[in-house]
Amino acid sequence: MYRHVKDLQFEARPAHPDAHFAMKIQELVGGQFGEMSVMMQYLFQGWNCRIPGKYKDMILDIGTEEIGHVEMLSTMIARLLEGAPSEVTADAAAANPALAAILGGMNPQHSIISGGGALPTNSQGIPWNAGYIVASGNLLTDFRSNVHAEAQSRLQTSRIYNMTDDPGVKAMLKFNLARDTFHQQQWLRGIEQLVADGLADVIEDSHAEEEDADQARTYWTLHEGSAGPQGSWAQGRTPVTDQEVLVHGDTPESTDDGTPPPPDPSLYATYDGSLGTPETGQPSATQSVMSKVKKALD
Amino acid sequence: MYRHVKDLQFEARPAHPDAHFAMKIQELVGGQFGEMSVMMQYLFQGWNCRIPGKYKDMILDIGTEEIGHVEMLSTMIARLLEGAPSEVTADAAAANPALAAILGGMNPQHSIISGGGALPTNSQGIPWNAGYIVASGNLLTDFRSNVHAEAQSRLQTSRIYNMTDDPGVKAMLKFNLARDTFHQQQWLRGIEQLVADGLADVIEDSHAEEEDADQARTYWTLHEGSAGPQGSWAQGRTPVTDQEVLVHGDTPESTDDGTPPPPDPSLYATYDGSLGTPETGQPSATQSVMSKVKKALD
Amino acid sequence: MYRHVKDLQFEARPAHPDAHFAMKIQELVGGQFGEMSVMMQYLFQGWNCRIPGKYKDMILDIGTEEIGHVEMLSTMIARLLEGAPSEVTADAAAANPALAAILGGMNPQHSIISGGGALPTNSQGIPWNAGYIVASGNLLTDFRSNVHAEAQSRLQTSRIYNMTDDPGVKAMLKFNLARDTFHQQQWLRGIEQLVADGLADVIEDSHAEEEDADQARTYWTLHEGSAGPQGSWAQGRTPVTDQEVLVHGDTPESTDDGTPPPPDPSLYATYDGSLGTPETGQPSATQSVMSKVKKALD
Amino acid sequence: MYRHVKDLQFEARPAHPDAHFAMKIQELVGGQFGEMSVMMQYLFQGWNCRIPGKYKDMILDIGTEEIGHVEMLSTMIARLLEGAPSEVTADAAAANPALAAILGGMNPQHSIISGGGALPTNSQGIPWNAGYIVASGNLLTDFRSNVHAEAQSRLQTSRIYNMTDDPGVKAMLKFNLARDTFHQQQWLRGIEQLVADGLADVIEDSHAEEEDADQARTYWTLHEGSAGPQGSWAQGRTPVTDQEVLVHGDTPESTDDGTPPPPDPSLYATYDGSLGTPETGQPSATQSVMSKVKKALD
Amino acid sequence: MYRHVKDLQFEARPAHPDAHFAMKIQELVGGQFGEMSVMMQYLFQGWNCRIPGKYKDMILDIGTEEIGHVEMLSTMIARLLEGAPSEVTADAAAANPALAAILGGMNPQHSIISGGGALPTNSQGIPWNAGYIVASGNLLTDFRSNVHAEAQSRLQTSRIYNMTDDPGVKAMLKFNLARDTFHQQQWLRGIEQLVADGLADVIEDSHAEEEDADQARTYWTLHEGSAGPQGSWAQGRTPVTDQEVLVHGDTPESTDDGTPPPPDPSLYATYDGSLGTPETGQPSATQSVMSKVKKALD
Amino acid sequence: MYRHVKDLQFEARPAHPDAHFAMKIQELVGGQFGEMSVMMQYLFQGWNCRIPGKYKDMILDIGTEEIGHVEMLSTMIARLLEGAPSEVTADAAAANPALAAILGGMNPQHSIISGGGALPTNSQGIPWNAGYIVASGNLLTDFRSNVHAEAQSRLQTSRIYNMTDDPGVKAMLKFNLARDTFHQQQWLRGIEQLVADGLADVIEDSHAEEEDADQARTYWTLHEGSAGPQGSWAQGRTPVTDQEVLVHGDTPESTDDGTPPPPDPSLYATYDGSLGTPETGQPSATQSVMSKVKKALD
Repeated sequence: MYRHVKDLQFEARPAHPDAHFAMKIQELVGGQFGEMSVMMQYLFQGWNCRIPGKYKDMILDIGTEEIGHVEMLSTMIARLLEGAPSEVTADAAAANPALAAILGGMNPQHSIISGGGALPTNSQGIPWNAGYIVASGNLLTDFRSNVHAEAQSRLQTSRIYNMTDDPGVKAMLKFNLARDTFHQQQWLRGIEQLVADGLADVIEDSHAEEEDADQARTYWTLHEGSAGPQGSWAQGRTPVTDQEVLVHGDTPESTDDGTPPPPDPSLYATYDGSLGTPETGQPSATQSVMSKVKKALD
Repeated sequence: MYRHVKDLQFEARPAHPDAHFAMKIQELVGGQFGEMSVMMQYLFQGWNCRIPGKYKDMILDIGTEEIGHVEMLSTMIARLLEGAPSEVTADAAAANPALAAILGGMNPQHSIISGGGALPTNSQGIPWNAGYIVASGNLLTDFRSNVHAEAQSRLQTSRIYNMTDDPGVKAMLKFNLARDTFHQQQWLRGIEQLVADGLADVIEDSHAEEEDADQARTYWTLHEGSAGPQGSWAQGRTPVTDQEVLVHGDTPESTDDGTPPPPDPSLYATYDGSLGTPETGQPSATQSVMSKVKKALD
Repeated sequence: MYRHVKDLQFEARPAHPDAHFAMKIQELVGGQFGEMSVMMQYLFQGWNCRIPGKYKDMILDIGTEEIGHVEMLSTMIARLLEGAPSEVTADAAAANPALAAILGGMNPQHSIISGGGALPTNSQGIPWNAGYIVASGNLLTDFRSNVHAEAQSRLQTSRIYNMTDDPGVKAMLKFNLARDTFHQQQWLRGIEQLVADGLADVIEDSHAEEEDADQARTYWTLHEGSAGPQGSWAQGRTPVTDQEVLVHGDTPESTDDGTPPPPDPSLYATYDGSLGTPETGQPSATQSVMSKVKKALD
Repeated sequence: MYRHVKDLQFEARPAHPDAHFAMKIQELVGGQFGEMSVMMQYLFQGWNCRIPGKYKDMILDIGTEEIGHVEMLSTMIARLLEGAPSEVTADAAAANPALAAILGGMNPQHSIISGGGALPTNSQGIPWNAGYIVASGNLLTDFRSNVHAEAQSRLQTSRIYNMTDDPGVKAMLKFNLARDTFHQQQWLRGIEQLVADGLADVIEDSHAEEEDADQARTYWTLHEGSAGPQGSWAQGRTPVTDQEVLVHGDTPESTDDGTPPPPDPSLYATYDGSLGTPETGQPSATQSVMSKVKKALD
Repeated sequence: MYRHVKDLQFEARPAHPDAHFAMKIQELVGGQFGEMSVMMQYLFQGWNCRIPGKYKDMILDIGTEEIGHVEMLSTMIARLLEGAPSEVTADAAAANPALAAILGGMNPQHSIISGGGALPTNSQGIPWNAGYIVASGNLLTDFRSNVHAEAQSRLQTSRIYNMTDDPGVKAMLKFNLARDTFHQQQWLRGIEQLVADGLADVIEDSHAEEEDADQARTYWTLHEGSAGPQGSWAQGRTPVTDQEVLVHGDTPESTDDGTPPPPDPSLYATYDGSLGTPETGQPSATQSVMSKVKKALD
Repeated sequence: MYRHVKDLQFEARPAHPDAHFAMKIQELVGGQFGEMSVMMQYLFQGWNCRIPGKYKDMILDIGTEEIGHVEMLSTMIARLLEGAPSEVTADAAAANPALAAILGGMNPQHSIISGGGALPTNSQGIPWNAGYIVASGNLLTDFRSNVHAEAQSRLQTSRIYNMTDDPGVKAMLKFNLARDTFHQQQWLRGIEQLVADGLADVIEDSHAEEEDADQARTYWTLHEGSAGPQGSWAQGRTPVTDQEVLVHGDTPESTDDGTPPPPDPSLYATYDGSLGTPETGQPSATQSVMSKVKKALD
């Protein structure tokens, strides 16, 4: 269950309104790596976490913090939009090219849809969607996702920081940059903790004996004159399995030319008969199902 | 520019058709972490890479390989669908509950849309979209994304591997598991190479002096009785800035209650006047723009 | 800012696992009217609310409660999936048609993506998106949206309630049905409060004098023999403007046949010249802009 | 079946072209509450309506009218785009900042995609999608959706009305405002008619005896110092069930901490064993299914 | 403006309900090539058509007909869902594997969302979206799109026709197949009419003199041993420009290795300096804009 | 399997950066008819093609070429963005209206997301999605799709060509225009080859005897005074079946008013009993399934 606390985690007070910047900073609300993404990603990871105690609580501490980050940014956007020239008409703009430029660069939905408030969308007006997030149940894998999300978020925040001179906006972004830095470290150290607690092997070792050992140490070059093998990644021994890295040219492992089977005629795939007559009627899998069902019921 | 090589990188020959498994394995084609994602992610990263030589070539070597992985999986799906009972009717199903169960679990678009071939969608029929991918121009950040994508992909492949007994399918998945393992290592070692080449600092250090130093080392607890601070992540010194980690309770940093400003009346936001009279007409930003324009033109 | 409380608002303990029902109940998590929608809708409405005090606090009280509803449903889904037969293979299914039917009706992403946990998607696997929600800044309009969201949510919950016999699931759904009932009343009474506080007129009266008075009281019949005018909605006086309702046949108000203007030739729209020569070059709007700019700068 | 009538319901003749305004008014064509939404929403509701006569006919009368509203707006947009400076090049813009501002604020797809015509998208270029609409089969619930859709649509139209001075555009928008007003009343009076006809109880009373009676009258406060309970919504008796409203602090009803069950090992969820050994193999639900099947077949 | 006619264009009466088939036939309502697509595609093409008379009227005749096709299919789906076992519970399914199979293959949203009616979605539950349609303003190009849409639609209808034995369903599909056939011919003959009327050249000849003449007649082979050049398409003379077709191996036309320019440092793209120092500050385009503006204003 | 060749197929060197044009040309990368669409469409068609030899190889030759077209356009965009004024702040823009206009018309994601590189999106920032593409398994139908895709692509390229004066950009677009011309011819001649090889009939003749013969030759007029029947398309004989074309007024073929059946009460559809008592409990289809299952097992 959740509770609200009335004050923002950090103040969100721009020195001046700036409707263009309001449009840009929407990327940090509803973009692929905006605060809605990390909020929903960590909440779902926390709810799905099957280890009561420090892991589940840490994930939910950070996820709960991120709800408040969406709140901070939403407040900032409403304030950046104060007095935005949204209902300026063509005649007014005609007399004022600078005003026309501001209007042209505004997000029209900041007026038409939200009435001067934040939108749950990115800087191009695309609604946030849950296809951005990851919650797999495996913490090692998910902490890697979290590292990447914080890294992308910090990179985008760094770029946006360079797009404003407003001291109030910069003050809040300094806070956000710092939280991105701290959280990035949290997830990196979370990975170390998983290793220390013996909880990393479950996926690192999954099917370790079954995977194709040679392919797990082979660099394939697929360019004429590729400089790729000059990197350290294609030299020495693999970190996990401690095997010599191989460099492989572009000859395939197989002699399979990938032709699909002859088609079912009632699906009208174009076919010239060159692969023989397709099997139709009941598929062999079904036939074997049925014979087993019958046997089981005899 | 690209070229095609007729044979698959590895053969894709199931021992038996299996329409249900064809539906599931679509997740590895067109899902969030399917092969279409890594293919497009690495190609865009490679095309946008501004360092000719080993980095650009390595990224494109792997991106080019992934095109072939979509090809392998597409072939596998067409073969798994051979003889699928797609045009079985209600009467036929009525006489055969096992057949009805197979029909019920098939993806109907494997018949109606693709005529027995692979679809550019995930296991639930959702078309792949480019909102899944990342190509930021910053290699450190992007290599972290690549590590996470390979990790999620290998986890999903491991789960799907457990859902089949077919030796032909398993043979191909052993190859895929191994490539996921190898590529995960590539990106991890790529990060080491960036550090060795002095190319990691550009983002790690961005605005390092400006970000809020205390917030870069503070763990916020937002639960009653959170066990989160018991993890090693909330103890000792921060790895990057070498500061003692602080634990902070839930008192906000601010006394800002986040109320948006008085609204522009012509947007009809509900308002009771309690925050004073809104500024309307031309926004101050525009006013200052205009006065500067006028000055510049005088 | 937000805080987490460890216990769920209400327990989420199914008597038995049921993977099919887990698939269906996803509609209440990530569907158009699922808990993610009301959570995000009320949070954005609350953050954008410009009246400190009872309105803003009520909206955020309910929005904060809804975060916990997503949490309850997510927990329920993880428990419904306990021991789900996700890695049953074709051979095992062949021997067991009932098992095959369960497999066929499961959401494969409950295994492949979330590892036995809830997904941020609806019952068909479509990720939640913010295009579902509404936060316009006008409370009267938004409370109407909230009434409708709670009504649709209660209808869907009522339908799903009939799809299970599990006493643990039913206990939680009785709680959810009741909250939907209560919240629906809240928003209806919120509308009464807005009226009582004189805050409803702002939009009800917007442009009241300008809108076309006759069209504001006219029922158009667009069927031969439509029984539509027999309803009370097409009789008596309009509730707001107290005018006699008119019934209008299907003759348009206009003699405008809607033909678009002659096209710009450089856009290659197909055109036979019958509407005369298109204006091209600089549009008149721009020309007038420019002449005004020049005048202003003279 | 449908028929077309050549003239528009109301004329759509702007006094002057205005490419910026064409971009904004797309919100009323293909936005969440644009005319495409109400058109498709009412058509699907009408087609799915199971009461021949006044209800079905009224819904289809309005749905059919809305097709013509999309037509009117599309015509308006094509005319607003007449002579738009779409193929102005960088050099020409360089000589003319006002022209550059107009170009910068245009929707580039108005030239590249539609050749000067309307697009089936919103003001940010996002294609309309059917996830916006509602047709549940329950008329009371759907009429509430219709009230909200007309209310949001009228609000957006009111805002857009303030963004233009063009008398031809304003004339058409006066018509649209009036139809939104009238239709809003239609749906409100449709709700009264459903009540009068005894058709509202089916959903209002669904599971009335089963829902948790206390929760149906309880306001939960989830803020420190929330002013929410000061509203009339948290006082007196509930309108439907005529019970005293209770105010409840933030103590959960449950002592369920929401931990998911021990995971299936073959899904690789991270787990430390603290919840005991997971059940695996065939789920109990399946086991009971199978035993019943066998019994039934014996 | 539009009108409704009470009877369906053709009857939609299945002999028996069939919930599985209702799920499949949704593809023809809300799929990429479903009736919603052709309806919206032709309506937008008609509204945007700039030639009053036979072209505009024909497009709108067919577009208006397609509204009625969505209506027919929606009715069919509601009837196919009559008595669907949507609220069967786990216990009931346990006693009845055939019933379990039907349930597993149903679309759960047919019960939860639409209450037994049609949905505006495809067979996998994905809402229809306007990204499927085309209305470019150029009739030749759009008629080619229409031919392809009718062809894909007829193919899908043919496949679905094979999936049912129901005489009532088949009767309606015979009607639909015939309309697809007829409309396909309409668009093909519409292209002939455009040619006859001299309206095709506008796009066929656009930039004819400017396009690279050699590339307009060259087949590039990008496989080792490609059999592609054996087709008639790579032999003889080009139909339009009457030039000999050339076959070109895989050597690029260029010596451009595609390296992007040195990056702006404030965007933190990874860069080693090997391409020289990036230009920053004001871009040259802006500089030239500014100098021209200044000159114009002097 | 695929290989990369270092040089671009054609050079992509703009004479000058132009951030506005970079925004527009994104339509050719990630729009509905951008190069990502034809690339993925032809690759999936090629992988799913069941005729080894000239067809499969031709499709893959062109699909492989299109990968390189995305590469060329991505390079062009990075170069057009060189030195774009992305981090210009409000103060700087205030002093410079021309700069403000450029900023206003830029895609902010070109800075925030991609760091000066191309995005996998269209000109409005919408991510590419696989719902744009077609690969049905039937080559005749798919080649028609390919003709339409190349035609729309060439139309959009022609329009964009008119929006720039940059000789480097125009040089590349001349190449692209030519390839669109050539590929359009390829697919048209591919259709001729399918006819010549006897591979077209499979779909042209599907259900030829079953489709409703009269409807396959009837033009329906659905306007008062429609000029549609004046076109050659509504006169003479049908090209395929050689029948006289009929013109049909707007009387439906049926007397079916499309009323859905009485609803299942547990789904709460609004119903007044006028259609009789709904069937509930187990649907007849299931009953007949069960009786057959029981018989089969007896």
